[in-house]
Formats: sequence, C-alpha cells, structure tokens
Amino acid sequence: MPAPTHNAILLISCPDQAGLVSLVAEFIRRHNGNIIYLDQHVDPEHGAFFMRIEWELENFKLSDEQLSTLFQEDIATPMQMNWRLHYSDQRPRVAIFATRESHCLYDLLSRHQSGELDIDIPVIISNREDLRDAADRFGISFSHYPITPDNKTKQEAEELELLRTHNVDTLVLARYMQILSDSFVSHYPEKIINIHHSFLPAFAGARPYHQAYDRGVKLVGATSHYVTADLDEGPIIAQDVIRVSHRETVSDFVRRGRDLEKVVLARAVWAHAQRKVLVFKNKTVVFS
Amino acid sequence: MPAPTHNAILLISCPDQAGLVSLVAEFIRRHNGNIIYLDQHVDPEHGAFFMRIEWELENFKLSDEQLSTLFQEDIATPMQMNWRLHYSDQRPRVAIFATRESHCLYDLLSRHQSGELDIDIPVIISNREDLRDAADRFGISFSHYPITPDNKTKQEAEELELLRTHNVDTLVLARYMQILSDSFVSHYPEKIINIHHSFLPAFAGARPYHQAYDRGVKLVGATSHYVTADLDEGPIIAQDVIRVSHRETVSDFVRRGRDLEKVVLARAVWAHAQRKVLVFKNKTVVFS
Amino acid sequence: MPAPTHNAILLISCPDQAGLVSLVAEFIRRHNGNIIYLDQHVDPEHGAFFMRIEWELENFKLSDEQLSTLFQEDIATPMQMNWRLHYSDQRPRVAIFATRESHCLYDLLSRHQSGELDIDIPVIISNREDLRDAADRFGISFSHYPITPDNKTKQEAEELELLRTHNVDTLVLARYMQILSDSFVSHYPEKIINIHHSFLPAFAGARPYHQAYDRGVKLVGATSHYVTADLDEGPIIAQDVIRVSHRETVSDFVRRGRDLEKVVLARAVWAHAQRKVLVFKNKTVVFS
Amino acid sequence: MPAPTHNAILLISCPDQAGLVSLVAEFIRRHNGNIIYLDQHVDPEHGAFFMRIEWELENFKLSDEQLSTLFQEDIATPMQMNWRLHYSDQRPRVAIFATRESHCLYDLLSRHQSGELDIDIPVIISNREDLRDAADRFGISFSHYPITPDNKTKQEAEELELLRTHNVDTLVLARYMQILSDSFVSHYPEKIINIHHSFLPAFAGARPYHQAYDRGVKLVGATSHYVTADLDEGPIIAQDVIRVSHRETVSDFVRRGRDLEKVVLARAVWAHAQRKVLVFKNKTVVFS
Repeated sequence: MPAPTHNAILLISCPDQAGLVSLVAEFIRRHNGNIIYLDQHVDPEHGAFFMRIEWELENFKLSDEQLSTLFQEDIATPMQMNWRLHYSDQRPRVAIFATRESHCLYDLLSRHQSGELDIDIPVIISNREDLRDAADRFGISFSHYPITPDNKTKQEAEELELLRTHNVDTLVLARYMQILSDSFVSHYPEKIINIHHSFLPAFAGARPYHQAYDRGVKLVGATSHYVTADLDEGPIIAQDVIRVSHRETVSDFVRRGRDLEKVVLARAVWAHAQRKVLVFKNKTVVFS
Repeated sequence: MPAPTHNAILLISCPDQAGLVSLVAEFIRRHNGNIIYLDQHVDPEHGAFFMRIEWELENFKLSDEQLSTLFQEDIATPMQMNWRLHYSDQRPRVAIFATRESHCLYDLLSRHQSGELDIDIPVIISNREDLRDAADRFGISFSHYPITPDNKTKQEAEELELLRTHNVDTLVLARYMQILSDSFVSHYPEKIINIHHSFLPAFAGARPYHQAYDRGVKLVGATSHYVTADLDEGPIIAQDVIRVSHRETVSDFVRRGRDLEKVVLARAVWAHAQRKVLVFKNKTVVFS
Repeated sequence: MPAPTHNAILLISCPDQAGLVSLVAEFIRRHNGNIIYLDQHVDPEHGAFFMRIEWELENFKLSDEQLSTLFQEDIATPMQMNWRLHYSDQRPRVAIFATRESHCLYDLLSRHQSGELDIDIPVIISNREDLRDAADRFGISFSHYPITPDNKTKQEAEELELLRTHNVDTLVLARYMQILSDSFVSHYPEKIINIHHSFLPAFAGARPYHQAYDRGVKLVGATSHYVTADLDEGPIIAQDVIRVSHRETVSDFVRRGRDLEKVVLARAVWAHAQRKVLVFKNKTVVFS
Repeated sequence: MPAPTHNAILLISCPDQAGLVSLVAEFIRRHNGNIIYLDQHVDPEHGAFFMRIEWELENFKLSDEQLSTLFQEDIATPMQMNWRLHYSDQRPRVAIFATRESHCLYDLLSRHQSGELDIDIPVIISNREDLRDAADRFGISFSHYPITPDNKTKQEAEELELLRTHNVDTLVLARYMQILSDSFVSHYPEKIINIHHSFLPAFAGARPYHQAYDRGVKLVGATSHYVTADLDEGPIIAQDVIRVSHRETVSDFVRRGRDLEKVVLARAVWAHAQRKVLVFKNKTVVFS
C-alpha cells in the first residue's frame, strides 16, 4: 500500500461575490501549493458560495498554523467565510453503531479492510450482543450498551466517554435501532451519519418497508443523512431506489432493500470521509 | 394498419383457493377459445387471487351474452369472483384534461396519432384556453370550462354531461391544475388517471418540485395513480425517478421532471388501455 | 414569453496549466461582464483543460468584434486555446431528418412548440413521405428526398443546398434510416446528432433491439452521439437504459425503447443547443 | 433460525401446448402437495414453455423416488419435458474462486454468514494468496492453486478433484482473474457463475473499465452470466448500470463499479440458489 498523501483540503461557505475562486486559488499558489482539485457551487436562492479545494503540501511554504492564521486574516475574515481545513492523512475516526442487522456493518468493515474507505474504526457500539461476532472477525473492539428507558441517559453518557477515549469524530449508524437523545446528537453536529430504509421524506419513522408495501409504491428506496434533533429530517447525503412490483412481499422489499441500504450508506460515508460534504440550511452540497 | 384483433380479456379477483387457474382456463378451452395470455397473482397477506386471461374469439363457441351468463353461473358465483370482461377491439374512450403545461398532452396525442395507444380521444377538456392550439393540431375537439369557486358545481355537471355525450369511460388528467370534487370523482371509480410530479407519498399537494428542492432530496420522481376522493392518495399505477444534485435549481427539476411525468403517465395509460390493471385495497396489480 | 437574454457563452479547450480559470474570468470582469455560469474540467490523462463560461452582455464594454480580437490576442494565443463564442439569442438552426418512426420527431416538435428547446427548426427532411403529416401539424416545411444507391450523391448535394438556403447549422437524425455519406458528414463536424437504439458500443448497426433480444440482455438502451465517418462510433452525448426481462418480446423492446430514444435524443439536443457540449478525442464533455 | 423448510421445486422446459400448467398442478395436488409458488413463461419465438413450481412436502404422498418415476412416466415423457427436481433443504454447495479483489468475496461471505444466501461454501479457491485472510475471517477453507501456462492442466485437474471431494455443485467466479479451460468448464454446465465488469456484450475481454473510459460511455455496467466455452458469451443472469460523466476517471469507474459488481453477482447467485434460473438457447428465464 502506498504511503498516504499529505494534502490539504479546504471547505468553504460564504456569501457569494465575484472573484472568490481566484482569491482562494491565488492564495494557495502564492505559497507554492499545487492545486489538484477545485470545485465550487453557488446557491442562487440564498446567494451562497461553496468551495472545496485540495492541494499538495510537498512544496507548500506555510506551516499548518501559519496557513490557518493567514487564511483567516487575509481571506476568511474579509469575505465572511465559514471554513474547515482537513489533511488527507488525518483519517476520520469512526464509531459504527449497529443492532442486529449485519449487512451494513459487514459492508463497511470489508470496505475498510480492503482499503476502499480512508477511515479508522476504533470501536463498534451496540445495544445488543448479536454482532459481536462480526466485530471479532475483523478484529475491532465491540462495546455493548444495552438501552432501556431507565438507563438511556447513563448509557449515552458512557458511550460519549468511550467515544472521547477513542478520539472518535464521526458516528455511523449502520441500522442502529435506537433513537439517540438530542443531547447526545448535539455532541456530534453533522458528524452522525444514518441510513434510513426509505426514500425520505416518504415513510419516515418505524417499519418503512411495511409502510411502502401498504401504500403500494412501485419503487422502494434508502436514504443516508446526517442526524439532527428532528428524527429522519436531517440533511440528505445520498439516496437511491429500486423498482418493485405487486409480485413482491414485504420480505422481498426487506431482502432487496438491504443492497440499497449498504450501498447508499457506504456512498455517504465515503463522501464524508473524503471531506466532500458541506451542509447549508439542512441541505448538502456533495462535491464530485 | 392491420384490422384490430377481436379477443376477449377477463380480469378476475376473488378469495384464493386451489385450482382457480385451471378452472378458468378449462372453461375457455372447453368452448374453443385459444388462450394467448395468462397471468395471475396471489396476495398472500389478504389471501386474494388475481388473474388476467386473454383469448382469441375466432372459433369461440359462446356469444358475448352466453359467455357472461355462463361464466357467472359456472365459475364466478361459486368462487365469489369479481370480474370484468373487455374486448380488445372496444378501445377505451378517453377525455384528456389539461391546463397550461403541454408536455403530457402532446405526448399522449402523438402516441395516439402514431397508433401506440389503443384508445380513442373524443375530447380534450381544459379550465383555460392555452392548449386549444395543441388540440387543433391533432384535430381533436377542445372544450373550455373555466372553474371558479362559485361555478365549480355547475361546470362539473356540464363536463359530466359532455363526457356522457362522448361515451367517455376514462379520464386522463395530464397536468390538470384543478381538484375534482368528490362527487365528480365518484362517477368514474378507478377510471381517472392522474400524474403527480413527485414520488408519492412524498410531496403530495401543491408545488412538489419546490418541496423537493427545499428538502434537498437527491432524486425527484413522478407518480401516476387512479384518482380517489383522497387527494394524491389513490392507487399507484406507475412511478419513476431521476437523479438530481445540489447543482440543480427548481427550474432544472421542473424541466427534467417533465420527461418523467410524460413517460410515467403514458405507461399508466397504456397499462389501463391494455386492461392490465386491477385495483384491490387501494393498491394495483399491473400485469406484465 | 420573456425577451431572450443576450448573453455570451465561451467554450474553451487547451493544454492544462495553473491559473486558466482566473485568467479567463478576470478578462471578462475587467470589461464589465457579469459572469452567471462557470464550469471547468481537467482531463488528467491528456492534460487537457475545458471550460464553459457565460456572462451577461448588458454592461459589457466590448463589441462582439472587439471581444473576439482581444480574447484571441490576450489569452487564446498565449494559452494555445481552441475556443468558440456563442450568443444566447442566436439559436441553433436545426434540420430534423426522419423516416417513418414518428416518436422522436413529435417529441422534438412539441418541445420546440412549448419553448423548452431554444432552437429554430426551418425544415424537416425525409427519404419518405410518411411523416409529412406530422410536419404539417406543426407548420414546418417538409422536404422529401428519396434515396437510392443510384441517386444518393445527387440527393445529398441537393439536401446540402437546401440546408445552406435555410442557414442550418445543426442536423438531428430522429430515427433517420439512411446512412449519410462521409462527404455529407464532413460538412457538419460535431453538428449532426443521431439517436441509436442500443447502449453503444453494444449492438451497433442494424436492428439493435433484435440483437439485444437474441443476446438475452437484461437491460436495453439508447445512445445519442455526434455522427462521424465511422458508423455508430462518434462521441457519445447521452445514454440511458431500461430494465427488461425474459417476459418481453422484441416488440416490447421496440415499444418501451421508444420512450428511451426520445428522451435521450432530446437530452442531447438540449445540451447541444445550450452550448454545453465539447468534443475532445472522440469523447464529450457535457457541462452541467 | 427456523428449521429449513422441506419443499420440492420442479423446473420444466418443453414444447408449448395447451394445458401444461393444469397438467402439472393437478399432478401435484392429486398427491396432496400444497403448491406455494407457480410461475410459467412461454417463449413465442421458439414455441417453448418454461415453468417453476414449488410445493410443501409435509402431506405429500409420494416418496422422492416415486415422485421422479411417476412424473417421468405420467407427464414428462408424453410432453417431451426436460425437468430438474430440487429440494429446498438441499442447499447448493458453492466453491468461490477469487484472485486479488476482495469486494465480491467479502460480500458473498457476509451474505452467507447472515443467512441471506441459502448455500454452503465448503471452499474458496484462488490462484494467489492475497485473499486467504478473508477466508480465514469467515472460517472457510482456502486452497491456493497458482496457475501458469505450463501447470494449468495439472492444476485444474487437482481443482476438479478438490471440488469432487467437497461435493461442490456450483462455482462462483468472484472476480477470478484466470480463464478456465473448456475442458474444466464442461464439468459444470450452467453451474459456473461469473461476474464481468461491463454491460455485456459491450467491453468483453480484458480491462472493461478502461475500454469504457476510452469509448466515453455515460453508463458503466456489470453482468453476471453462466460460463460457457465462449468467453463472456454465456447466458446472462443479471445486469445493472450506473451513470458516469466526463468528471470521472478510470479509477472512479473501478471504485463505483465495485458496488455494481457485488450486487449483480449476489443477485445471480441468489436466483441460482433459489432454483429460479432456467437456460434455453443461451438465454435465461429468471423466475420472479
């Protein structure tokens, strides 16, 4: 496996105005950064500008600290920018939450194992014991936190402690069948990725395949989104559907839907890990 | 163009039990009918059986009347069947309702003109004058019924009268921007086909592309369904989606969605015209 | 209908190097152009740069002639650019070629009629009389050039003369069932758009639905491409597929494929008319 | 996990004639079989009839041997049927062949582990050592047979011996990068399932993603098919595509294509394992 590249990735959002692309690109070139990716987007409705730019640091003349300071002073402050800086060799540290269904978990673990996903997975957390065996197969620590109405606050506090211990910065809910409290969610804004087994906003809530079957739809879907305090209402990162017909039962929906769920979730995790997702007003910009 | 075939088409629904397929097929063969299509479906949840069977009448020994009487006595009554009998050379007589958007109307008219759709279109009805020109191009009668809250009851009564005059049996709402009254709908149960520009049940009601844009979905859809008293809640006949991204505005959704709408509506009209659709408990069986 | 906007659209390809986007954007801003669209692409394999930029001319300080001269001198020559300049109110003048199948023709005519396609259609050309009626319905001139092996050279010469008379700059082959001679094609490089009813390169040549049926594929497709001297080998602009199964016959493929063909062809014509397509080494860049 | 059901599954092909469905269904009912699935298909081009019927054996009055004998005498011989009888609790015994790419292998192993695939996997065979670790994670025997032009005949003979030892009846080539000899293939007719990373027949042979990239297609696909003596020409079981654009490089095709490959292969293996696939004249009938 090749040594990981050491690139900088800058994600920007700000009020739109002329010359923003040049301004940022010039700043990087002036300090000898070799730009290898640049994509931008303007939201015409809100007059908002979004940009992702990545450059090689090999001959870059600024230290990380200088970069942050200078960029803030020279560009971000005058242009009223929100910005985040990532380094390509600082991989997201991901905790996977799961319950009983193994397909999304196995899919993420095998993608991680094969090097397809640039993430670290220090821990798998579950409210049940069912998937300990899957974690063991891939040599990943498994922590069991059974949740009841009575112990939920205490258990979430311990989970947060564990996440801190592992320096986790991203949570992936791989068919985790517990609702996280608002308080818990507030610790990881735009950092908890869920997979919901319907094309949201249709069939939010429980048993979406049953809802879809009862409504008689001709397509079933899956949606990956960031978790917010409003259940199933967070910004959508990826969605897809498959065609179904009257011939199929709920259990066919469930079986065929699993393929959707794992692919859609993996697409969202990949985009997040590549620092390609920006959130603005509960919608995402997913750079290509 | 070849002379239309003279086939019989029987659509059946009844409680499921062993031997139904043989029973019906044997009845037809006994009277010298040559079966050219047979498809059936069992809804395991409700124990319901559905069947579509089509046969050539060339050497069939029963008159239309004898067929109806005998089938009712010998099979339908003992098996508690609901059934409808169609003849392939009795084409549905369709009134198209439209308002301002021409894409679905032009699409249906050109499919009709080229012989793709086995229907007659005696009349186009609109609450505006905008599409009179389109009707004229294809030599089809155009009737203008402006609708206001005050005149709605009276206008619908006159529309019903016109539909009766033209022996219309099927209504297609090709982006018709008026809500039909429950009373009006009750005259054409499972015979009014609408196109809604979203993947229902998501984004029912007004301005679905705007709703979709605001929610930030990654797919937009279109749904064709039978109209019932519950707006956008009728049995779904056909659905499809296209992929969208943050790059697209509402007007891109509208433009690209038009292709979906016209294809999905035409698919539903075709299936209806081919007598391939059965409704059961607000869901459709669409035979292949 | 609103008055057409008067914007300039510049399409550029050149060897990739740092700062190209800024260079072009700065040039336009310096002369008071308000940029409303900018998209670029780098082909890393060939080190090639592509760009589409559109700006409002309302306060732009250069005349059309000055713009061309200055852009060539200041930027295009030093950067070794190929470039084309379009104005949004100079609509492509399109001749549609068709034979017997009417679905693509009707689809283009109704899109044109409703204002969806920013093109003029001065003439429809056919090797048969079948579609004269369709042209008449939309009030468009129809010219009949029957083609035989003996008269082909002469007829193509007359067609070219007719196209010149009508100032045609784009040809759309809407299921035109004649092969254009290399000589004819050479008059309209990257300006003849064809629809082929398969997912090229599969099933090039005659009767692609029959080929697809014989091979037993589970998807059938349609491909719109620029015509080159190599039959079915030109740069692909748009492609799509639909799912089929063993239940479907060739005539089902033909019927369902028509919807694909017309949508895929219209997508390609729209992108071409919006000046969103660049060709490089027999492939297209289709800007979003 | 519930005890596996003990059902019989009969797959039939024969010349089409009236009454075949009734004939078979009656035979089963007469001996007290409770039919839980029946689907049939007529190929009108070849006048061929295909059927899949499944029934519960709980109260069935015939032993396995009696069933075979009686069915042959009473029905198969007079109707010139080819038929195969399976029992739902006799799971296919599958050997997976793989080389270096792990995504299809991990996908099959995790589906197997979770009980989604009703198969046994006694052995994984590879021409390299790379994936031994994946086999170990799931506790499955891994056999390494390096292949060179010189040792191929001998190695294949040993592989065949190993497959016999394990009573393997189905081979799945999960991105196995060796071409099997005709002689080897002849031992498992319609029992070797391959995944090819293109929408065949486009881009047969080596490096299909590179071929697709060079041709500039707007869709890339994957195809699962039975292996025959003609490379990439066997009967297609499942196919799917994803949309690509000029923005994507070959390595994007490779990355995104992996999701297609594993889902399409798994769909084919599932249909094969459920005894839902019949081959006729190099095409498949895949029952729903």
